[in-house]
Amino acid sequence: MSEVRVIQIHESIFAENDRTAERIRERMEKQGTLFLNVMSSPGSGKTTTLVAVINRLKDKLNIGEMDVDIQSSLDAQRVADLTGIRALQIHNGGLCHIDADMTARALLEYDTAGLDLLILENIGNLVCPAEFDTGAHKNVTILSVPEGDDKPLKYPLMYQVSDVVLINKMDTVAYFDFDLEKARERILALNPNALIFPISAKTGEGIDAVCSWILAETERVKRGA
Amino acid sequence: MSEVRVIQIHESIFAENDRTAERIRERMEKQGTLFLNVMSSPGSGKTTTLVAVINRLKDKLNIGEMDVDIQSSLDAQRVADLTGIRALQIHNGGLCHIDADMTARALLEYDTAGLDLLILENIGNLVCPAEFDTGAHKNVTILSVPEGDDKPLKYPLMYQVSDVVLINKMDTVAYFDFDLEKARERILALNPNALIFPISAKTGEGIDAVCSWILAETERVKRGA
Repeated sequence: MSEVRVIQIHESIFAENDRTAERIRERMEKQGTLFLNVMSSPGSGKTTTLVAVINRLKDKLNIGEMDVDIQSSLDAQRVADLTGIRALQIHNGGLCHIDADMTARALLEYDTAGLDLLILENIGNLVCPAEFDTGAHKNVTILSVPEGDDKPLKYPLMYQVSDVVLINKMDTVAYFDFDLEKARERILALNPNALIFPISAKTGEGIDAVCSWILAETERVKRGA
Repeated sequence: MSEVRVIQIHESIFAENDRTAERIRERMEKQGTLFLNVMSSPGSGKTTTLVAVINRLKDKLNIGEMDVDIQSSLDAQRVADLTGIRALQIHNGGLCHIDADMTARALLEYDTAGLDLLILENIGNLVCPAEFDTGAHKNVTILSVPEGDDKPLKYPLMYQVSDVVLINKMDTVAYFDFDLEKARERILALNPNALIFPISAKTGEGIDAVCSWILAETERVKRGA
């Protein structure tokens, strides 16, 4: 009987989370802010990619960034130092994800009024973050070449919930057994609507295409579409 | 009050897990089997490293392997195909870890009597697997060069609980900003007793040193030390 009770708590947490996430999205739409949730394995280049994207877009858009880590503040500091934008570090106390309630609490500390774009850099993990709606409009996953083209087969939920997949570290593709076409097929088998951008945050390859997509999405949020 | 109850359930899960883990270790010691738990990010080369190690040791040791994934059976199949040893795939149903109870259930399906070495390939994740004692004698973590030398700063618990850290993909170190000395210092600051082996599972660099360590540990378990 106590097991049943635990399962009910679990379900109600997910249902409550979805309601909170929906309220966050509504608030962001009302104020004309596109909200992106960026997920990946540890070390696939989330921060480096975000720095490259923000530096190309910061003259066109008013951008904010919230960064989740277990206990360090390296990433938010790096984003702030390298782009000059305002970044908030969220310490999630050892959890493997951030949910909508945690996002809502972070939004109490971080003023997003007037932002065209709010980016949430999620914790490095391919399992837990996929399970929780954060209230973002779009989920973006980064898969880096050294991780291998089999990751969609092994972490399917992450790819099912991601609207955009960035395939990063393309500058190193000659040194690894990574088949871009296989990766593409595996992602599209899980999510036929996924947009896939091969990029290198280090060399800048493909970053313009990502920025064009973000600009189009910010326009769409502002139009209320 | 319901929150307090949930916290108690959580604590009792951990306490119960530790007891089960201790029982697994005792059983393994009794039968003279060294039990290793191998953890890392997705794509850092767990399976490739294990294949390299097993192929060098399989004439000297009787080796078994259990592989945890969310729903695919790629890794156990790959280990079995490439080494010829008996491998078991454990599907953990979307969780981000394997605990001692799950290990105990897997041991009901997988006969380990007569094994000198049992390897558990944990799920690719730097957060959750660090929290659960699986019953292994030693925890081994793989950090791959493309992930960056800052991972110990960002996922400290993983390095605190790991007896051995393999720094993999050393053959690609020229293409990434990875400082081996910094990585070493950061790991040792968290765990002064950690053994650190730079390796390349692809080229074979450093694999002999890892095998020597495993052979010494199997001897120690057999001696009951």
